[in-house]
Amino acid sequence: MEGVFCQKLLEIPTPNGSVLHFLRAEYPLMPYREHFGEIYFSEVIAGEVKAWKRHIRQNQLFAVPSGLLRLVLYDVRPNSPSRHMVHELFLGRPDHYNLVRIPAGIWYGFSAPGPKDALLCNAADIPHDPAESERLPEKTELIPYAFPEHAPKKQMG
Amino acid sequence: MEGVFCQKLLEIPTPNGSVLHFLRAEYPLMPYREHFGEIYFSEVIAGEVKAWKRHIRQNQLFAVPSGLLRLVLYDVRPNSPSRHMVHELFLGRPDHYNLVRIPAGIWYGFSAPGPKDALLCNAADIPHDPAESERLPEKTELIPYAFPEHAPKKQMG
Repeated sequence: MEGVFCQKLLEIPTPNGSVLHFLRAEYPLMPYREHFGEIYFSEVIAGEVKAWKRHIRQNQLFAVPSGLLRLVLYDVRPNSPSRHMVHELFLGRPDHYNLVRIPAGIWYGFSAPGPKDALLCNAADIPHDPAESERLPEKTELIPYAFPEHAPKKQMG
Repeated sequence: MEGVFCQKLLEIPTPNGSVLHFLRAEYPLMPYREHFGEIYFSEVIAGEVKAWKRHIRQNQLFAVPSGLLRLVLYDVRPNSPSRHMVHELFLGRPDHYNLVRIPAGIWYGFSAPGPKDALLCNAADIPHDPAESERLPEKTELIPYAFPEHAPKKQMG
């Protein structure tokens, strides 16, 4: 999808727990030092969905150090070669520990297919500004994607 | 402890999972935009210890978005008013979701008292350089602190 880039991040395993790279000065994805907006985490409870959101100006870098995230992108930018394309990808260790750049203008939503909660880390190039983003409900006719129903959590006992 | 600062970070709960602030441009703790080294995660398996390490030049900002971390600091800086002081603190949600600045020159170590693994996010003001850090084993006579033995993990069945 036009303007969406993905790079492998390094996981360095140790017996006590891994070290996991996130942002380094030499990464080509974003001239990070000149465009620091904010960094925050978004937790997604196992089985839950957070969708949809679109930024007008903000570009974002996503990585998922804990749990598994299903990330769905829908391009509605008028002049984009990938206009009306839907892109689904997974982020999480060990096989999908990647850094993904989501450019402004793309609808995105995500879910935690489980069984663990997912933790997304998001580095944005402008500070949070509610006036530059839009939202749609998870179920909307404007986006041709339905998040799968996740299995209900196991009952104890 | 001299040069160690701690600020409360915001957790914004939602039914699908919390949003958790980490770094914002207006934070007084570090002129972050001018001093970006790298950001990485350090996972600590429940019950495990990662200790000890000391940086010569690097200052660090720690926060723990997932699990609970026991963080221990030992000051050996010759001219520090808190020289030979040991400081133990906890980082993690919901009560200790804080940003802590660890200045260069202080020995630090941490553990995950459990029951969950802990995930530490570390924003450092210089890129990783093995030549500017030192290590000691967890059990050393040079640091007057013993990490408590954590309860062994529950056996299944």
